Amino acid sequence: MYTLGIDIGGTKIAGAVCDENDKVLSQWRVPTPTDPDEINDCILEIYNEALRLHSDIPTMGISAAGNVKADRRTMSFSANIAKWIDYPLADRIEELTDHKCKVVVENDANCAGWGEYILGAGRGSRNMVMLTVGTGLGGAIIINGELYRGSFGMAAELGHLPMVSDGDFCGCGLRGCAERYTSGNALEHFARSGIRRMPQKGKRLLELCGGDVNTLEGKMVSQAAQEGDELALYAFGKIGEWLGRTMAAIAAVIDPDLFVIGGGVVSVGDILLDPARYNYTRFLQAAAYREHAKILPATAGGDAGMIGAADLARREA
Amino acid sequence: MYTLGIDIGGTKIAGAVCDENDKVLSQWRVPTPTDPDEINDCILEIYNEALRLHSDIPTMGISAAGNVKADRRTMSFSANIAKWIDYPLADRIEELTDHKCKVVVENDANCAGWGEYILGAGRGSRNMVMLTVGTGLGGAIIINGELYRGSFGMAAELGHLPMVSDGDFCGCGLRGCAERYTSGNALEHFARSGIRRMPQKGKRLLELCGGDVNTLEGKMVSQAAQEGDELALYAFGKIGEWLGRTMAAIAAVIDPDLFVIGGGVVSVGDILLDPARYNYTRFLQAAAYREHAKILPATAGGDAGMIGAADLARREA
Amino acid sequence: MYTLGIDIGGTKIAGAVCDENDKVLSQWRVPTPTDPDEINDCILEIYNEALRLHSDIPTMGISAAGNVKADRRTMSFSANIAKWIDYPLADRIEELTDHKCKVVVENDANCAGWGEYILGAGRGSRNMVMLTVGTGLGGAIIINGELYRGSFGMAAELGHLPMVSDGDFCGCGLRGCAERYTSGNALEHFARSGIRRMPQKGKRLLELCGGDVNTLEGKMVSQAAQEGDELALYAFGKIGEWLGRTMAAIAAVIDPDLFVIGGGVVSVGDILLDPARYNYTRFLQAAAYREHAKILPATAGGDAGMIGAADLARREA
Amino acid sequence: MYTLGIDIGGTKIAGAVCDENDKVLSQWRVPTPTDPDEINDCILEIYNEALRLHSDIPTMGISAAGNVKADRRTMSFSANIAKWIDYPLADRIEELTDHKCKVVVENDANCAGWGEYILGAGRGSRNMVMLTVGTGLGGAIIINGELYRGSFGMAAELGHLPMVSDGDFCGCGLRGCAERYTSGNALEHFARSGIRRMPQKGKRLLELCGGDVNTLEGKMVSQAAQEGDELALYAFGKIGEWLGRTMAAIAAVIDPDLFVIGGGVVSVGDILLDPARYNYTRFLQAAAYREHAKILPATAGGDAGMIGAADLARREA
Repeated sequence: MYTLGIDIGGTKIAGAVCDENDKVLSQWRVPTPTDPDEINDCILEIYNEALRLHSDIPTMGISAAGNVKADRRTMSFSANIAKWIDYPLADRIEELTDHKCKVVVENDANCAGWGEYILGAGRGSRNMVMLTVGTGLGGAIIINGELYRGSFGMAAELGHLPMVSDGDFCGCGLRGCAERYTSGNALEHFARSGIRRMPQKGKRLLELCGGDVNTLEGKMVSQAAQEGDELALYAFGKIGEWLGRTMAAIAAVIDPDLFVIGGGVVSVGDILLDPARYNYTRFLQAAAYREHAKILPATAGGDAGMIGAADLARREA
Repeated sequence: MYTLGIDIGGTKIAGAVCDENDKVLSQWRVPTPTDPDEINDCILEIYNEALRLHSDIPTMGISAAGNVKADRRTMSFSANIAKWIDYPLADRIEELTDHKCKVVVENDANCAGWGEYILGAGRGSRNMVMLTVGTGLGGAIIINGELYRGSFGMAAELGHLPMVSDGDFCGCGLRGCAERYTSGNALEHFARSGIRRMPQKGKRLLELCGGDVNTLEGKMVSQAAQEGDELALYAFGKIGEWLGRTMAAIAAVIDPDLFVIGGGVVSVGDILLDPARYNYTRFLQAAAYREHAKILPATAGGDAGMIGAADLARREA
Repeated sequence: MYTLGIDIGGTKIAGAVCDENDKVLSQWRVPTPTDPDEINDCILEIYNEALRLHSDIPTMGISAAGNVKADRRTMSFSANIAKWIDYPLADRIEELTDHKCKVVVENDANCAGWGEYILGAGRGSRNMVMLTVGTGLGGAIIINGELYRGSFGMAAELGHLPMVSDGDFCGCGLRGCAERYTSGNALEHFARSGIRRMPQKGKRLLELCGGDVNTLEGKMVSQAAQEGDELALYAFGKIGEWLGRTMAAIAAVIDPDLFVIGGGVVSVGDILLDPARYNYTRFLQAAAYREHAKILPATAGGDAGMIGAADLARREA
Repeated sequence: MYTLGIDIGGTKIAGAVCDENDKVLSQWRVPTPTDPDEINDCILEIYNEALRLHSDIPTMGISAAGNVKADRRTMSFSANIAKWIDYPLADRIEELTDHKCKVVVENDANCAGWGEYILGAGRGSRNMVMLTVGTGLGGAIIINGELYRGSFGMAAELGHLPMVSDGDFCGCGLRGCAERYTSGNALEHFARSGIRRMPQKGKRLLELCGGDVNTLEGKMVSQAAQEGDELALYAFGKIGEWLGRTMAAIAAVIDPDLFVIGGGVVSVGDILLDPARYNYTRFLQAAAYREHAKILPATAGGDAGMIGAADLARREA
């Protein structure tokens, strides 16, 4: 039995037909439109092409950025797509397929975490936490070998763990959320702060952003850090510190055996993970009297979310 | 089959023989000695008396304050009993019973949480969090109807969730832990702060503590709050606020359907729970776009921990 | 003897000839160019017109946004005008006047504070602090009846008083500065946060900003607050709270007898000042055992800075 | 003309007769009683002995821990001596001397700061801040060569500058005051925290305090730090960090040219001052675009407060 996995990203919609061993048989990729109806049309198109190749696709898993209700069919809210407020995404797609395909919707960080658990660095773990350090900070929790969604589908909103009382204003309307201090956005913030305070050390970064600190992007900081630039390493040291502190907070609740760190920002490897590991130990409760979770980079690659979505949908069906 | 539940508290050791329906058949209570060996002797004595009455006690569950290893037999650390560092408590007691009784050790907050789940306010919940507001702040997590211990036995250390960066010094060696802001200790702190800053409003509390603010105890603040004293209500408002904030942080990880609030401090009821509920909503991520967990006071009574320990041990056996 | 006061604002350059009693005799206003040379030309033009009317202008006081060196002649840094790094502004203008006019440069918040001290709410005070709540938060300190500049011209940078450890990222490169929590920018932040968290209460504000929360401006929040809108009042309550906390911090250093609050945001009057006064008392050290400073709105009007600059220059000369 | 300087310390009352060049001519020292009347008797006794030797003592300056009213005669509050609430100390002593001696009362940190200014590291400074790192954190401010007391006698309460929102509970009833993070008390806190979290590194400190971390005293941490002990150096690093941060906050208000660091804790010298200097630069607003104040240890010795009190009284008279 084949399953279609769909990943609705900020810039592209990707789709893949997977077999029961999570092997990808065929794959598609189209730009993401902004209107929900057009998004649905894109998904239908991929579904139809998949049908043509594989004749029967009884199940579809969709990975979407935003809050998914516990029914795993409805988007309650999305920061990216304004009209996804209480939006019955699974209903719409099932209608478009004439109810020939059962649809399961899952939060994108959950899909990435599950993909990593079944295919990547998470294999063999029992209780695992995945943190996806992208523009923001996504989270997924595996408990006793199963994706944990919480009672209302809102578990693992780890980017919004409150880390600083009266801290940085977050787009969610709260202050001091973890993702304000450890994310691609935070990396840019720390780098800009550094340039403003230590202009003599900011030369390489200013060069990379053409002299205007406001146009500085995370990938420039990554490049400079890999070249050994001191200020870029400082910025990674700071988001690494807060990544460690955030993991220590999570451990006080979940006590996992493994943290997997994914997302674009982790491409620098130990430049991020070393300060994260150091500060995890520094801020972990009773650190001297307990076993410590492993902290590993993600290994399942960019398709993990799409494959994870397909796998989760097949298990559900 | 009967099980002996033992609760090693700061001032008393309590024991109860329970049947398979968690009904208490007989009960004992002795003062807690300070030396581990004497504690073991007390437990043996209760065991022997239990044997005399019920002839066969194949299983014993022990509730103990401190960190219990994942083997559920060893105390790795206890703030109360200095010699419980890597202490094989289950081994010791099993030896004393000539290996006729299998012993399971569990953290006291976990036992109280489990007792509440099977007998009290937690019945019917799927994912529940219990917070025990005593001298400190204890936590227990039930996931999918089972006590969740984490990979190394250290889950639900919710009193040490970091709430304030560079916050109040905690006895654990970290700063800003939740229990510094919501606990009996915190209640005394806030009340003392209030008296120092608003001496004209502190009259009733000063009366209750004989004029010396350093001797003020939590139960005096409870009494004054129940009389309607403004300053005492302020102090409860503050620990209630932080209880709400702590629950909101936990919800970002666990998304439970229920919080049960136990411990001596909750005896004032809505004086504590109203500000907790208000601030839970105020600090909950995406509060306007999600379902909210219930927040209820514990109802299973002071023996819940002892019975919970017995029940957990029987299930383990 | 007449003195020319110049106020280089973000949008306009204003000039006024004042007599020795700070009476304005004539006045000019032109748009602010972006280039330093063009700014200098504008100032020269105003100076020449002033000369034509009043024949002798031996002294000029310039109010400028940015850091002025202790020599009161050089701009060391300005957030608005990029080329003002170690820029000898007084030298340049004196050259343009053929050294017929002595120029004194002063920070704009200092000029506004001094204007308020000699003409407005500050009259009769001995030790006064002025806080200008505009886009950011400016400060001025009067000690023993004289403007206090500090040893290096950097006193009264009150908008950058650190209020929150690891707090909101500030444009200055630090975190948690007072102006991140009490300023026009902060007002917008708190209003946006409120709309995101309490969408049902955000209707009026969303109406005023045409539905896009990112285009919300401070003056819309002021308008809604004056209409009694709950969410707008909440936002003013928050910046008022932090204004009070900031004043309490300043009082721990300076212990003034008066705070004067100016800037565009204070146009709402007690909507801002009531929560500021309440929280000043709440956070003031030893509040119950001391006299308290008065907290008054500014009264000297929009020309106070320009007149203050002229007055300071005349005293200096 | 001779002046008597009196320093009422926590454990001893010291007195000295000084000439007009602040030279000490004779000196006394007695244990501090707890009752205000007995304190007064001790002072009278010293005064009488001073009279016997020097025949005429028209002026007395008293250095006292606590808040002194702007009249410089009345104690409004003292953390040490409970009955000093609105206590007319100068009146009492003048009565006891049959009004033959005029008494001026001054806060002890102010006296120490003034002593340092006239005799020690502060000579030649124009705007100086002294921080006395003892059990708590005292402050004194010199502006334009004069001791600055503020409008109500409450200036320079620098130990209560708010550094952390919702921070450590302070004895003053507020939270997050500077002295909770940089003082002898804070040194003990950080050392104890370190021992709890890194027991393997705590050996030397545990040895010094006889194995009970609760009996650890600041002077033990100083000794261990001077021996090179890693954990003790960590604790000094932390209070040094916060000393630097506190000075940076003060600089945003006062912009002094000099900070003088006194008190028992500074006896370790650069072990404290190096991290203080480093973090002062790290947290100073616009650090790259301004001149920086010097940071020096106090040099005037333990009698500076007593001599400072005498000098201030003579100037007043």
